[in-house]
Amino acid sequence: MCQLLGMNSLKPAELGFSLAGFLLRGGETDEHADGWGIALYEEQGCKLVIDEQASASSPVAAWVQRHTGRSRNVIAHIRKATQGEVTATNCHPFVRHLWGQAWCFAHNGNLDKQALRTPRHFTPCGDTDSELAFCLLFDALLTRFGEAAPPEPLLRAALDEVSAEIAQAGNFNYVLSNGDALFAHRSTELHYVERAWPFGKAQLLDCLCEIDFARHNQPDDRMIILATRPLTNEHWQPLPIGRVSAFREGRLLRDDEPAGH
Amino acid sequence: MCQLLGMNSLKPAELGFSLAGFLLRGGETDEHADGWGIALYEEQGCKLVIDEQASASSPVAAWVQRHTGRSRNVIAHIRKATQGEVTATNCHPFVRHLWGQAWCFAHNGNLDKQALRTPRHFTPCGDTDSELAFCLLFDALLTRFGEAAPPEPLLRAALDEVSAEIAQAGNFNYVLSNGDALFAHRSTELHYVERAWPFGKAQLLDCLCEIDFARHNQPDDRMIILATRPLTNEHWQPLPIGRVSAFREGRLLRDDEPAGH
Repeated sequence: MCQLLGMNSLKPAELGFSLAGFLLRGGETDEHADGWGIALYEEQGCKLVIDEQASASSPVAAWVQRHTGRSRNVIAHIRKATQGEVTATNCHPFVRHLWGQAWCFAHNGNLDKQALRTPRHFTPCGDTDSELAFCLLFDALLTRFGEAAPPEPLLRAALDEVSAEIAQAGNFNYVLSNGDALFAHRSTELHYVERAWPFGKAQLLDCLCEIDFARHNQPDDRMIILATRPLTNEHWQPLPIGRVSAFREGRLLRDDEPAGH
Repeated sequence: MCQLLGMNSLKPAELGFSLAGFLLRGGETDEHADGWGIALYEEQGCKLVIDEQASASSPVAAWVQRHTGRSRNVIAHIRKATQGEVTATNCHPFVRHLWGQAWCFAHNGNLDKQALRTPRHFTPCGDTDSELAFCLLFDALLTRFGEAAPPEPLLRAALDEVSAEIAQAGNFNYVLSNGDALFAHRSTELHYVERAWPFGKAQLLDCLCEIDFARHNQPDDRMIILATRPLTNEHWQPLPIGRVSAFREGRLLRDDEPAGH
């Protein structure tokens, strides 16, 4: 199994604090030591770093954690290999391009590959169940909508439907982003916390670090953090099971709200 | 205009020496200061770093140059923006997935976007002529060969044909790799050097660094380095104009040799 981290923010924001706690779980406070990766969506463009070393001790991870910069959407993943070797090819997030957007995807859970179909248009490069599921998800989107992005309510409905289908093969917790919205599907474990005015203090659960968000944010800042398990002593809430939640501009969208422009 | 760097090696090798000279051209010994990027293909998987800062002064570039690790194929690019803003979206190398392989592409030259068609299956995320041309190239490969990789001679012939078509819109120097072979197309300027036994000494042209390759290589090591302009005082040769050259296992392939397994 693995652990997931996601961020969706109204304004470009730094994730350094939460990321510090998360990366410790890759071999220090937890056992997810078979690689890690992060996708940072800046205003224009997505930066993706993957590394097959343990995040708690990787020099690349230490460097990235200090130099994340400001992003509106972030997806990170620490891996405990269950299917597929410990190689860079098998490190999440995976990226694919559709509708002129770079989509990043990270998965936590174990899927029975035998129970999954073979995708036609998106082909895995590695041998994980996760990349196969990502390819199937996007195969279904391409088949359904063709080469033009659909209106957002249709996209969310399609993600919901196809994710439910794939989840029949096992546990399918994932985070997915195109740099604008963040989508998340929970099968077993996935939590989120909203950080907004009035900002409070928080303490990481994996080390002694604490932060006063009021000192680092403006009153109109707003963001959500997603994680497999809560990272801090804040008020984390579980996501609904068996469906796709969407976040945009730093908050959870209602079911009838458009997730994109 | 921009500058390109490529490496294709029989065994995983470090590119640190050549890269050091190349990155200086991004704002110090030359004017290509609008971003840079590098794709490093390790045994399993491709690591891609892009950065919109000037490579000669970017802390990310300094870090990467010291920690490249060993690769069999590398593509790097320093940018002088002619079309498209200075953003991460517009930094080369660009990546797309086809036939279960991650393909990286970097381009040097200026293409008239008006003279290029709109791709159907691969869509640009940014607004450069380069990413558009890459998408057109892969659109043509997908249209021609479908979802299964063609035999290598057919692939090279197709690359040759489509590149010639795109080059009618301007200068189309590029390097392209799937982690196994390296392909290069020259319109105006592109050189390569072979490093093999007996290894000699070399001196970078952009700084005082020199190296004795005999001290760092085994007798059976072999690699080629590609660059827009020669990086060292070695014997660099120009690539043939107006066609695709292919490199594999550290050497230039003859026209009738397969470029892949």
